[in-house]
Amino acid sequence: MARPVTALDAVLDHLAEQEKTHLKELQDLVRIPSVSADPSYAKDVRKAAEWLARRLRRAGLENVGLVETAGHPAVVADWLHAGDAPTVLVYGHYDVQPAQKSDGWRFDPFEARIEDGRILGRGTTDDKGQSLCHVYAAEAWIKNGGPPVNLKMVFEGEEESGSVNFPEVLDKTGDRLRADLLVVSDSMMRGEGRPAITYSLRGLTYLQVDVQGPRGDLHSGTWGGVVWNPIEALCHMLASCKDPKTGKVRVKGFYDDVVRPSKTERATIKEHGEADEDLRRGAGVDALFGESGWSAQERIGVRPTFEVNGIWGGYTGAGSKTVIPATAHAKVSCRLVADQKPEVIAAAVERHLLAMAPEGVRAAVRTLNDGDAVRADPGHPLVKAVGKALGDAFGQPAVPLPEGGSIPAVADMQQRLGAIPVLAGFGNRDENMHAPEESFRVDSFVRGRIACARMLAEVAATGR
Amino acid sequence: MARPVTALDAVLDHLAEQEKTHLKELQDLVRIPSVSADPSYAKDVRKAAEWLARRLRRAGLENVGLVETAGHPAVVADWLHAGDAPTVLVYGHYDVQPAQKSDGWRFDPFEARIEDGRILGRGTTDDKGQSLCHVYAAEAWIKNGGPPVNLKMVFEGEEESGSVNFPEVLDKTGDRLRADLLVVSDSMMRGEGRPAITYSLRGLTYLQVDVQGPRGDLHSGTWGGVVWNPIEALCHMLASCKDPKTGKVRVKGFYDDVVRPSKTERATIKEHGEADEDLRRGAGVDALFGESGWSAQERIGVRPTFEVNGIWGGYTGAGSKTVIPATAHAKVSCRLVADQKPEVIAAAVERHLLAMAPEGVRAAVRTLNDGDAVRADPGHPLVKAVGKALGDAFGQPAVPLPEGGSIPAVADMQQRLGAIPVLAGFGNRDENMHAPEESFRVDSFVRGRIACARMLAEVAATGR
Repeated sequence: MARPVTALDAVLDHLAEQEKTHLKELQDLVRIPSVSADPSYAKDVRKAAEWLARRLRRAGLENVGLVETAGHPAVVADWLHAGDAPTVLVYGHYDVQPAQKSDGWRFDPFEARIEDGRILGRGTTDDKGQSLCHVYAAEAWIKNGGPPVNLKMVFEGEEESGSVNFPEVLDKTGDRLRADLLVVSDSMMRGEGRPAITYSLRGLTYLQVDVQGPRGDLHSGTWGGVVWNPIEALCHMLASCKDPKTGKVRVKGFYDDVVRPSKTERATIKEHGEADEDLRRGAGVDALFGESGWSAQERIGVRPTFEVNGIWGGYTGAGSKTVIPATAHAKVSCRLVADQKPEVIAAAVERHLLAMAPEGVRAAVRTLNDGDAVRADPGHPLVKAVGKALGDAFGQPAVPLPEGGSIPAVADMQQRLGAIPVLAGFGNRDENMHAPEESFRVDSFVRGRIACARMLAEVAATGR
Repeated sequence: MARPVTALDAVLDHLAEQEKTHLKELQDLVRIPSVSADPSYAKDVRKAAEWLARRLRRAGLENVGLVETAGHPAVVADWLHAGDAPTVLVYGHYDVQPAQKSDGWRFDPFEARIEDGRILGRGTTDDKGQSLCHVYAAEAWIKNGGPPVNLKMVFEGEEESGSVNFPEVLDKTGDRLRADLLVVSDSMMRGEGRPAITYSLRGLTYLQVDVQGPRGDLHSGTWGGVVWNPIEALCHMLASCKDPKTGKVRVKGFYDDVVRPSKTERATIKEHGEADEDLRRGAGVDALFGESGWSAQERIGVRPTFEVNGIWGGYTGAGSKTVIPATAHAKVSCRLVADQKPEVIAAAVERHLLAMAPEGVRAAVRTLNDGDAVRADPGHPLVKAVGKALGDAFGQPAVPLPEGGSIPAVADMQQRLGAIPVLAGFGNRDENMHAPEESFRVDSFVRGRIACARMLAEVAATGR
């Protein structure tokens, strides 16, 4: 007995027919070097925003427009003709990390060459390729009777430069972006062809530590042995923050608000997460190190961290200079999990560091930026619906996993728009996001579009 | 009864008559920007060497010439007609530290303006002014019957760039520079108008520490909590080198070869050295810190140190970057005292640091440069003779004190020429050597010449 032809079949047929065209269009978009961090690319960033707005209009989306900010604009669009069906907000970004051939690319990073089943170039996987999957899925639905859900889309132009003006986008759009579900495709799969649902992101507090020793730089001969060297003071202060044996953060109160994962969640991470040995090989180290009592994948996903991201002081050039510097500095950050509050942790770290600063130096700690952790219930029907769509598109079940990174815009949207956040990414670790030779598998792009189309049907099926 | 007119009286009269001329000539020499570290000043360095050679010839010194090296030349001269009298070798340098008005000078650093009893400009106190004192003293003696000692002089052209080619000067001159006493005027007085005899200099070993963590930089979100951060490993390693309570260096064997000062020496340092409170105010810190059981002045003079001179790793620019860097680096140095050997201490520090490097990082330590400590017996007749001359010239007794800095060329000369080293300096702490607004007190210059003339008589009086 023949299966009845459904709207979804027509949508999938449309996507199959358009495969080559969509890939060509992705090349066009990649060729616009929309580097948001470098002001000399400002025109290209706007060009990419306008390219995307035109394409959204052509796809049949409505109310397409640019939301201007103090920085680069966001592109918004919607299609709201599904009545009482759930509302899905798609978030992506059209800006990219900086890239220059001399960084270690074999080709011009904005050439968008296709080779060995991948499209090569800056922004291919992060996040132009992933963003366009949603645009093409929307178009396929609109051209075949309309999506079964109400659809809203926002594409940011400053994700790669810290999303500093994204709150302004939310201020200006107000209720326009309210949704039941927030879908973000700016993350990675569990491995080649193995889809993953990311239901949590870590938060962040990022601090700068400044230590002042003597009034000015001192000659280490005529002064050596007399004052606290601010570099050494800083080393003592930073070394005191983490137990070198257990990997536990020693800052008082640090773990107080941490939500412990359930047994089920730990079992899922154990079953589907990366093995310690694979992570060890991936990092290229002789031995892993971290908080005792947790696997490496758990430490990345559900445990907070303390890391020193940068340190500097004294003479750092070639050869030698015998100086006791006046100052030393470090950048430190903590990745946070629910329900840690960035400002609470920042204050605790500051208290600890100041208490550890020896007499004879003056230390100051200030917050450079922060963001809340994001966490959804991996068992929520909407989250499971997205997972089913991914599983069907890629031919194997989607694994629910927590993610160690932070996307401040997602936390903002969860809090301000009341949407349940879920990250359904099509990237892979070996696709070099933020590095030379970024690429995106053509197969991920092809199936990603299908996953995006399917998830609208699955979400609609949950009812409201 | 009139005191009989001696040769010394005639010498002192000559110096008094020539005061204005000598000051003008110092201005001429300061106006030649003989910056040895910057190749674009190479012609000026040679011009200064030739100026000095001409002046030495005019003073009546003999065998005046330039000793060519792979770098800048040294200028040598002698006057060897005192028969069995002792031989004095004078060492100074005619090159200067870099200086640009924009560094914070009120005037062109090579203008040599005279203001408020000081001559202002790069090289005035370090070391052109101090070097010329010896030239003028020699001239005064030569024009008045000849010095009572055999006199040798060497003026280096690369002291401010590490004296790397000075061993070549000693190779080329061989026995020509052998002497009983080595007098160096490239150091400081105890305070304004208070002469000091420096009978020891610290040695040095200067190392670079490189720590390698993961193969490449890692994103602190997707990897945070899994690997030893090389910056934190380095902080632990460096923090372990010194007890934060007692200030003792914790490196095994570090103090084994240290010569302990005698009770007399400690008493002299206590009586004449700077008080802790003065050093605290000088450094501009709330509290001093160093090895317990020793005064600050003792820690500078007769105790070895461990200092971190520079540290760097990860992101050090503006704002934030969430990176776990692949590497972290530090420059560390130890000031050494007799009889510590630089290579022994370097090996001990290396062993300690490598033992403290946690599993999961790889550390390497290499020596960038080193030099032996210099030490003379403060009670030696030749040392005391120089002290008496300084005391007579400045009108108060010269204080014998150990010095914390290192002058590698002096260690070389002590070892290769068999001379007893003594530093008789005319500089003052507030004369900003190596800093903007360097100056030299005109009175120090005037009396410095007298001290140099007197010391030749005092040394002659010791016999041989």
